[in-house]
Amino acid sequence: MGLVTADMSVSLDLVGAGRDQSLEHPFGPAVGERFHTWMFEHGEESADEIAGILDAGAFIMGRHMFDPHRGEWDLGWTGWWGPEPPYRAPVFVLCSRPREPLTMEGGTTFHFVTEGPTVALERARAAAGERNVSIAGGVTTLNGYLAAGVVDELRLHVAPFTLGEGLRVFDDVPDLTMVPAASRTTPHVTHLTFRRA
Amino acid sequence: MGLVTADMSVSLDLVGAGRDQSLEHPFGPAVGERFHTWMFEHGEESADEIAGILDAGAFIMGRHMFDPHRGEWDLGWTGWWGPEPPYRAPVFVLCSRPREPLTMEGGTTFHFVTEGPTVALERARAAAGERNVSIAGGVTTLNGYLAAGVVDELRLHVAPFTLGEGLRVFDDVPDLTMVPAASRTTPHVTHLTFRRA
Repeated sequence: MGLVTADMSVSLDLVGAGRDQSLEHPFGPAVGERFHTWMFEHGEESADEIAGILDAGAFIMGRHMFDPHRGEWDLGWTGWWGPEPPYRAPVFVLCSRPREPLTMEGGTTFHFVTEGPTVALERARAAAGERNVSIAGGVTTLNGYLAAGVVDELRLHVAPFTLGEGLRVFDDVPDLTMVPAASRTTPHVTHLTFRRA
Repeated sequence: MGLVTADMSVSLDLVGAGRDQSLEHPFGPAVGERFHTWMFEHGEESADEIAGILDAGAFIMGRHMFDPHRGEWDLGWTGWWGPEPPYRAPVFVLCSRPREPLTMEGGTTFHFVTEGPTVALERARAAAGERNVSIAGGVTTLNGYLAAGVVDELRLHVAPFTLGEGLRVFDDVPDLTMVPAASRTTPHVTHLTFRRA
């Protein structure tokens, strides 16, 4: 069985999503693309870490990471990633309203799971087989799995600015102990890896 | 002129001091000595970082780091560090009530500064000459200097557990941008260095 991994880009103060997220500003207007400058503008400095983010046999994400519409499902919405999302594997989306699976080009299928995070993880593990399951976000979804103690490897990509408010990694995750596994600094990001104790 | 540096041991969720600090539990009962396990039990893994903490020509600390008594000054209190504190340099203690300087063995003199953090930094810079000034803590004092934009080098020593509550580094420090400078992982701590942008 593979590991449960998670990657998250955060600010210096561990904010993973700013306030007032919207279609126009998926990470909030104060953040813009700053969380991902290290990836989109300086990707050559972090090629291994970027490759690791998508190296999984199945993914799990929260409803708001898939669909930022706050009200009803927009059944025409097929995610942020265009017709060929980069996951190329089953993606289990936590949600409260049922929806048929959505098969995209290139191997990605979004499955909508209404039975909660434990069932989503079981389904993702079954789908991933020997490969890893990646918790793809957002922050609240990640924190739930961290609090449940099921994340084997947490990889934080720390962008070097503070935000002061927003959803933080480790909010509502008291008393979790991990093992420092790796760290690497580029001029634009600090990559940190922690493993399950 | 030297740099303004700061070292702080923090939890994974960036808490630098737990709740309910007291004489018995200077970091709060939930923390105990856990912030400093990396230093006191595994110091051989982090010899350079430990040496760096005390490599300054003058230090600044907050009132509660010097004296945990919450009411009046306890004029018999001479700090946590015994008759020969490890600073071996002038230490400027931010406080609101005047007190005569306190000369200890081994080169440490505590100076009590009632004129605020800017004056404390001026006095520390003058005392340090060409050497660095170190912001020795606690968290609130550090955050004040970070928000003022005067910290040239911030060194966080991240112990791998979450606390969930307490005073955090970067609280009330919105919109600070720094430059990632170094990181190193041991089995017990992640050392991170950020420089002023």
